[in-house]
Amino acid sequence: MDNFSDRLLDAINTKGSPICVGLDPRLELLPNSIVKKAFQKVRKTNSAIANAFEAFNKAVIDVVFDLVPVVKPQIAFYEAYGAAGIKAFMNTVAYAHRKGLIVIEDAKRNDIGTTAAAYALGHLGCPSSRITSKSQGLGVDAITINAYLGYDGIKPFIERASEYGKGVFILVKTSNPSSREIQDLILADPFQGMTVYERVAELVDSWGEKSIGKSGFSNVGAVVGATFPSVAAQLRKLMPNAIFLLPGYGAQGAKGKDIAPCFNAAKKGAIVSSSRQITYAFRNAEGKEISGVPFTEHIRKAVIKMRKDVNSAIGAL
Amino acid sequence: MDNFSDRLLDAINTKGSPICVGLDPRLELLPNSIVKKAFQKVRKTNSAIANAFEAFNKAVIDVVFDLVPVVKPQIAFYEAYGAAGIKAFMNTVAYAHRKGLIVIEDAKRNDIGTTAAAYALGHLGCPSSRITSKSQGLGVDAITINAYLGYDGIKPFIERASEYGKGVFILVKTSNPSSREIQDLILADPFQGMTVYERVAELVDSWGEKSIGKSGFSNVGAVVGATFPSVAAQLRKLMPNAIFLLPGYGAQGAKGKDIAPCFNAAKKGAIVSSSRQITYAFRNAEGKEISGVPFTEHIRKAVIKMRKDVNSAIGAL
Repeated sequence: MDNFSDRLLDAINTKGSPICVGLDPRLELLPNSIVKKAFQKVRKTNSAIANAFEAFNKAVIDVVFDLVPVVKPQIAFYEAYGAAGIKAFMNTVAYAHRKGLIVIEDAKRNDIGTTAAAYALGHLGCPSSRITSKSQGLGVDAITINAYLGYDGIKPFIERASEYGKGVFILVKTSNPSSREIQDLILADPFQGMTVYERVAELVDSWGEKSIGKSGFSNVGAVVGATFPSVAAQLRKLMPNAIFLLPGYGAQGAKGKDIAPCFNAAKKGAIVSSSRQITYAFRNAEGKEISGVPFTEHIRKAVIKMRKDVNSAIGAL
Repeated sequence: MDNFSDRLLDAINTKGSPICVGLDPRLELLPNSIVKKAFQKVRKTNSAIANAFEAFNKAVIDVVFDLVPVVKPQIAFYEAYGAAGIKAFMNTVAYAHRKGLIVIEDAKRNDIGTTAAAYALGHLGCPSSRITSKSQGLGVDAITINAYLGYDGIKPFIERASEYGKGVFILVKTSNPSSREIQDLILADPFQGMTVYERVAELVDSWGEKSIGKSGFSNVGAVVGATFPSVAAQLRKLMPNAIFLLPGYGAQGAKGKDIAPCFNAAKKGAIVSSSRQITYAFRNAEGKEISGVPFTEHIRKAVIKMRKDVNSAIGAL
């Protein structure tokens, strides 16, 4: 089984940019054309909404798959519509795989023992090549997880990841303002002067030691908010082998130069994610849909712009 | 809209015990009779397994609903089976509601902004009385959440909880051994000498201030591992208005006397949860199914035993 980190770095290399498109479908933001078609003959049931999500995601994937190595669906937006939403999620994963994309599920799951094992098997446990709507598990390539419960909650995910050639990304420092409330607390002895997130970073580094691939990176990655560039440089030192997943680019305010410190000296080791700024690029600053050209053209243009911005920031390293 | 904390305390009062049965269906542990019936004519697809889960949950609910105020399904075990699993989850919630039970979903969700809003709407957003397989949202009465991301990730849940008469339980100190890795870290100034979980407890207390009901308890509760009795007493002081959800009773080793410090002077304010020890009581120490009487009798006996143990521990306060 190929190591996930090697697979991810290969894909970044092939596509020529370490970027990722978030697939976060929201009914109120979908293009009119999709909404009109979806509800032509049916009421807005969970099922009809989920079908609209799936149609939108496929349209997005069709215009980005040759430009990006990864898509990142946020499962919250799907599970809000119950079983129908999960079906749309699974169909989206399968479609992305058919287009050769790696799928990182943003789920921030966390639990212990048999529960963590159920999450790990359910989300990572299906080989990517074999996912169908009937198979057990969502079949994603990697999942984001939360480490507040310690290694008991991490181990089952790492084990399944090794077994199936998958990966995990552990929340270290998140991109939002109130992340400081717990993550930035300053520690006393024996970790005098470190923050909670720095200690979590040390744990992430140790948890990843056993799954370092040929690329020098581990299957145990880290979620690091791209909105805090000075923090990123410090975290790069604490987790030399972790691939960073960087949310916060675009809508949350981070720019290309902010993400530069997340890459190592060889310009490797991070993947930059953007959701709203890409998939809803067909809406103007007031939120209105821009008429004239198909919505997919706006999405493709936005990806090309992000690629350029990110690649030039890395090139300048 | 009735306040959740008042509704929960009323239900505890009516049923005569602050206990909760976890509904964590695992295929390998289901009773032979259920398994045999479920797979008589079909293969073990997600859908057939989910149907078996639902049949088992209904059988459990039928023999515990008059003895307990609350059931707590752990969603990990359902979402492992994709859309079919979620359907079984929703049908279980609806059935529990028909039997007059309060449903606390163990999900440990966490995210920020629109994503947290989607989780909150999706899990809590449907009025309990109106849940159907077609309605948006899982319609549970309360959900467990993880605070590592700070208030940005908590606020959307608290808002929906207020709107729909629901509640949240925030992870403070979990029952597992490795919970110490992050939760027990000692802080420096300005929180000199406190642990991370004590600081989280202070935040939980402040986040709950605005939703205190007639009972004196808030809609913002806390998850506190029943496996650490000395910790519980300290946390009771830090969160005088929070209802404690106590996992760890039974299979994880906590006994009635361990949970006593979680209750206040009026013998109120906590709910004790047990899963395996109740729902799989028809299996012996070696894991073999005990023959002779229906599995449901073992379950009912186990609940009665737990009730007695917990009630006598509280009575002795």
